[in-house]
Parts: sequence; structure tokens; C-alpha cells
Amino acid sequence: MARIVMKFGGTSMAGIERIRHVAGLVRREVEAGNDVAVVVSAMAGETDRLIQFCREAASLYDPREYDVVVASGEQVTSGLLAITLQGMGLNARSYMGWQLPIRASGHASALIDDIEAEVLERVFAEGGIAVIPGFQGIAADGSLATLGRGGSDTSAVALAAAVNADRCDIYTDVDGVYTTDPRIVPKARKLPIVTYEEMLELAGVGAKVLQTRSVALAMRHRIRLQVLSSFEDRPGTLIVGEDQIEDYGMERQVITGIAHDKNEARVTLTGISDRPGAAAAIFGALAGAGVNYDMIVQSVAKAGEKTEITFTVPASALERCSDVLGKSRPEIGYGELIADTDICKVSIVGVGIRSNPDIAARMFATLAERRIDILAIATSEIKVSVLIPEDYTELAVRVLHTAYGLDTEEQE
Amino acid sequence: MARIVMKFGGTSMAGIERIRHVAGLVRREVEAGNDVAVVVSAMAGETDRLIQFCREAASLYDPREYDVVVASGEQVTSGLLAITLQGMGLNARSYMGWQLPIRASGHASALIDDIEAEVLERVFAEGGIAVIPGFQGIAADGSLATLGRGGSDTSAVALAAAVNADRCDIYTDVDGVYTTDPRIVPKARKLPIVTYEEMLELAGVGAKVLQTRSVALAMRHRIRLQVLSSFEDRPGTLIVGEDQIEDYGMERQVITGIAHDKNEARVTLTGISDRPGAAAAIFGALAGAGVNYDMIVQSVAKAGEKTEITFTVPASALERCSDVLGKSRPEIGYGELIADTDICKVSIVGVGIRSNPDIAARMFATLAERRIDILAIATSEIKVSVLIPEDYTELAVRVLHTAYGLDTEEQE
Repeated sequence: MARIVMKFGGTSMAGIERIRHVAGLVRREVEAGNDVAVVVSAMAGETDRLIQFCREAASLYDPREYDVVVASGEQVTSGLLAITLQGMGLNARSYMGWQLPIRASGHASALIDDIEAEVLERVFAEGGIAVIPGFQGIAADGSLATLGRGGSDTSAVALAAAVNADRCDIYTDVDGVYTTDPRIVPKARKLPIVTYEEMLELAGVGAKVLQTRSVALAMRHRIRLQVLSSFEDRPGTLIVGEDQIEDYGMERQVITGIAHDKNEARVTLTGISDRPGAAAAIFGALAGAGVNYDMIVQSVAKAGEKTEITFTVPASALERCSDVLGKSRPEIGYGELIADTDICKVSIVGVGIRSNPDIAARMFATLAERRIDILAIATSEIKVSVLIPEDYTELAVRVLHTAYGLDTEEQE
Repeated sequence: MARIVMKFGGTSMAGIERIRHVAGLVRREVEAGNDVAVVVSAMAGETDRLIQFCREAASLYDPREYDVVVASGEQVTSGLLAITLQGMGLNARSYMGWQLPIRASGHASALIDDIEAEVLERVFAEGGIAVIPGFQGIAADGSLATLGRGGSDTSAVALAAAVNADRCDIYTDVDGVYTTDPRIVPKARKLPIVTYEEMLELAGVGAKVLQTRSVALAMRHRIRLQVLSSFEDRPGTLIVGEDQIEDYGMERQVITGIAHDKNEARVTLTGISDRPGAAAAIFGALAGAGVNYDMIVQSVAKAGEKTEITFTVPASALERCSDVLGKSRPEIGYGELIADTDICKVSIVGVGIRSNPDIAARMFATLAERRIDILAIATSEIKVSVLIPEDYTELAVRVLHTAYGLDTEEQE
């Protein structure tokens, strides 16, 4: 007997037929003797519909009232799943975020502070099933708070931590985490297991299976996560701590996956005086405006000459970045700001990187063989990212996937 | 300066354009210096959509979970109206039923127990506008509770009572209460003012402008109600106590309105032994099953002979009525149960009835002139109802409307 939090995304909850299917998956875990809490998303499309209403009502809407509107989508699906489970003869009941409560700070992209486990422990003790709307909590002033898009994954992991769950199963419309995007590389393989760190790096560079926050939270609380399909009955991908990998006796590749992210922009500031403090002025201004930056390259200048600084920002933050740097131009002192969005960040991710310097070298050599320009490089313990011209994205991902031995042998 | 509760129905809240119009009506009251609380329904069609989901999820759904699902519709519109009002520069905020709280008993058709006015008084003191979802409250165990269809009228009146409002304005898609259904009698007139008692009798026999419960509650707390159109800018109908009518100096007709209700069924039990206790057995059984009955007629039997009892029930309760009486047949002792739904109840309503016995007599004479059979008669202080064959409904309403001088002189 185990204690399991099951989470179902919007595609899994889209309509009563699918909710009935979800109820069947819940029943299976209950009949296996497990304690089960279920976290649900709104029906696919519903949150977008509600957000659209808010935007039409006022272009600058109050995040607090926005939360009142959008939290309703998960309220509906949690009530409907409870009704469906009851219809199967199971002892189920819904508990809103404010009823448990799930305490959160902020609005529209609130953070979970803590979850009271008392009600849930009582439900488990009585052999019941708790159905909980994802994506929502209650703020200290008693107002509704939502966690931002994709927040239901985070709700599920936080609940799993609160009740000391043995596993948190994230049911979605893909059946696991792949070595790379199967639309680009048909020979991509589903990974049976990855570490939290690898999953974080993969999610951070474009693998959109799980919300990054939820993985970080799972890592902090050592919650065993599983990503699997609601629609196909086969094992998904386990996400665990590095020390737990060996328990599964897996033969691991040094590289776990290849990710790419086209939603980046490259910014170059020219004509910068080579004096101490220029970089601090630039990145201090960006940090102050909440703009994330990455992949900084500074050209080496001869004494007394001007230099250039290049870095990347999310494409969605480019406008804000230009504004901020325009205003700080007197303090920074630069010539031109040149922006380029026709670039892509391609990354190799794997815990093997940290112990093996050859791995990064192999990446650069593989790309050079295909004459793919590397515009910038960034490395972390378990990731190497390169910035390349966007046109070469698919080619780069494909040759790297082969170079690191990730291609599956099955014919697809 | 006055304190006003404004209530907007589903048609008035159907989409952002209409919500913007509603916000304009609210702004007008605020700019006139009034304290304003607004009660809103879900967008037209939304509650039906949510109920349909519940029915599809399980035919016998848990009323508690049903409440979780259907309460979401008003949550959405109250958040959206608050956003829209804020967009106009007004200080508005939504408060869910559980946040005030609005305490209620039961589920799916809960009754309001009381409303905490503290939050609202603070909002008024700060010059704010409170937007409150109608139709919902919180049960003693902390679960969501809804008041049953049309419950938002009741929410509005209960709120008006809780904050001692000077007036409760019910905005809807009709512009007031008419002397009769204008679809049947084009010469029907809008009533500038009616008493609570008249409104109750009119609502009880088919005038669907206001939920009966809300009128009864307004009467109990002496809340001045006004029914008016969200779409046309003209006075509606005031609903007040009888003693307040004179304040308006109205020249009143003895009859206020003619109502009809086709949703009735006539039930006749034949072959009943004329012994004490037969009626008690019948109506005790019905009351026990929650079936409302009305218009009882018992034929006079000769000593030792069998008799008949005829009465009406709502057509929707006919099946339950037949079940209950079938089971109680041994105790009651009757021959046949004959049901007829091709009948209609036509009623004249007016506070003048109680002081003027001629009024009922004129009703019977008017119908007799047109050879309309009267199958049963029921009278109250301010209402006389007759049961007639359904085919004659429109004719009866029209001739009575003329007979009591209710026809308007304007050409329509």
C-alpha cells in the first residue's frame, strides 16, 4: 500500500467521457489499496476562455479578480470528478484550495506557502478519495489566489509533499520525457528515468512536459515524480534523485537528452568602454526589471579600445529589455543595441557531463563538422548550451542525438 | 444618499459587452452618492451547461458536489464585473459567499440562514462597491451551498436585509410586472406598484418575474423591491407593503393582475368510502413526500355511498404523486386514480378582493358568459383561482382582463 497523488491535465479532463476515463484510473489505484488524492486541471481551453474574458473586461485587470475568474475552471472539474467517482461507488469528495487550506502568496502567479494536511489525513483514514482543484490556493487576506499557467503540476507536488506521498503521478497527453522532441527526431527514445537536475535543465531549455517550478519543488522535497499518459496504459518516465537512479539498475547514457529553445533573443551592445562596472550596470538594470539573461559573451578589447557585450534574453522579454537598457544608456555608456531573434539555443543535458570534459568537446566538434556556427556557449554542471542560427536547429538536434548514441534502434 | 442592492440576471450578464453596460448602471448609482452592493447571476446558459455536466457525470449526483460545480458560474461573472468596474476607475471588489460569509443550510436548494454584514459595512465606509455572486453561500461544515434555480433574487433580498438597504433593484430582461402576460393580452399594462402579497400570489400562479422566495423574504424584512429592465432606461415596478402604497398616491384598481399556470395537473381519486380520515390519509401521504397540492374538491356523497376527491398538483410532481398514492392505497382505500394535465389555473389577484365579495362573483359570471367550464375554485384573501380546460386559457385571461378594467388605453 502506498500513498499517491495523481494529477490530470486539461486534455485528460476535457469533457465527461474523459473524466470518466480518469475516474477509472483513480479507481485502479484505490482498488490496489493505495491512499489517493487527485489534483485536476480545468477542461482544456477553459482557462484560456476565462483569461480572454478578463482581458476583454479591462486591459489592465486586477490580478486578484482575475484569480476569482480563472480559479473557477478547476472548481468545475474537481466537482465533476468527485461526482463521477461517487457514481462508481467510491467515497470521493472535492476540497477547494480555500477549504484545506492551501495557503499562497501573491496573485495570478502566486507561490504556495504551505498546505494543511489535516483534512486530507482524515479523508485517508476514512478510506476516502480527495479531489483537489490544481492551480489555486488562498491568500493571507482570504482572497482566492492562482499559481500561474501550468500551476496544477506544482499543486500536485506540493500536496504530495504535504501528505508525504510515496509518488506523484502527473498524467498528461504525452507518455513521458523523451531524449529530444520526437517531431524533430523520429528516433527519439522515451526515457524510463531521469534525475530532477536533468529534468530541470531540460524543462529550462524548452522541454515542456512539466512546469519547472514543480520539478524544483519535487527535488527539494524528494518526491518521486512520474510523467505518464492518461490515454495509453504504459509506464511513463520516473523523475527521481541521482542517488535513486542506481536502484533501478539502469544502463545510463552520459547524455540524457537534447533540448532546444527558439524563444530566445540575442542582444548585442556595441561601443562599450572597457572599464570595470559596465557589465554590472547592464545586468544590474536587467535584474532590477525582472528580465532573465543568459549566455553572456564579452569580446576581449585591446587597452583603450571599445568592446562589445552579447547576451540572450527570452524573446518575450526583448521589448522590456530594450526599454530598460535605453533608459540606462547614460550610466552604461554604449553605442548601439542590436537585437536578433533568428537564433536558437541547443543544449545537451546529462549528469555525466560534470565528470567528463570530452562530452562538451564532442558537441562542438559535431556541430563544426556540419559547419554550424556557434554564436555563444554556456555551461553548467550538467548542461552545455550553444547558441546557433535558427535555421540550423533541426539539423543540430538530429546530429547531436546521433552523436551521443541516443537514437533508438526500433524502426518508427 | 441611499443604500442600494442591485441584482443583475443571466441575460444582463451574458458576455463582456453586457457586463460593461451593467457596470454603467452601477456607476450611475455610485455617482449619485449611493452605497452600492451588486449581486450577479451566471451568464445566461452557463448554469444549464454546468447542470448538464453534473447529470452526465452521474444520474444521481451528490448535491454537495453539484453545488461546487454550479456555484462557479456566478464566481466568474462577479470577478468580471469587478474588473470592469475597476476599469472605469471605480473602487470595486468581489466577495464570494464563503468570504462574507453568507451562511446557508442544505445543498442544491439551500436556505440562507444569515449574512455577516461586517465586510460590506467596511466596503461602504471606504466608498467601495461590493460585487457578490448570487445563488450561493457556505454550509455549516464549510462546503459550498447553492440556493436552487433563481436563487440570486433571494441572495439580493437577503443582502439588502443584512445591510439595511433602502431598496433592492432587480434588473432583468423584462421591464416590470404586468397586469397579465402581454403575449396573451397585448393591452396588458405595466404596474407601477404592487404589494408583496399581490406579487406573491402572482408569482405563485405563474408570473415568473421574481422568485417567490425572494418576495416572501422582502415582505418579511420590509425591503422595497424594484423590478426593472437592464436594457431600457425607464422605471420598473415597485413591490412594497400595503401601507406604503398610499404614499405613492396611486389610483388603484381592485384587481391588480390576472395570472395563469398551465403547469398543473388535476388528480381525481374515485370510490372513496365517505369516512372520516380519508382526506387526512391522502394529503398526509402527499405532504410526507413533499408534493404540494391545491384546489381540493370533495363531492358530497349520500350516506353509505362512495365519494370522489379531486385536487391539483404541479405537473412536474404528478409522477411522484401517483407513486405515493399507489403505495398508500390500502390505507386510503380508493378505486381509481385519474390524472389530467390538460387543465389550467387562472387567477385574479388584488388586495381589493378581501373587502369586496362581488369581485369573485364577477369572475364566475364573466367566464360563464363565454361558456368556460369551471372545474374547481380556490380562494384566498387576495386571490381567486379557477381551474378550467387548458384550451380556454387565453380566452379566459383576455375576457377577465377586460372585465376588471385592466386593458390599457394606448394602442399597441
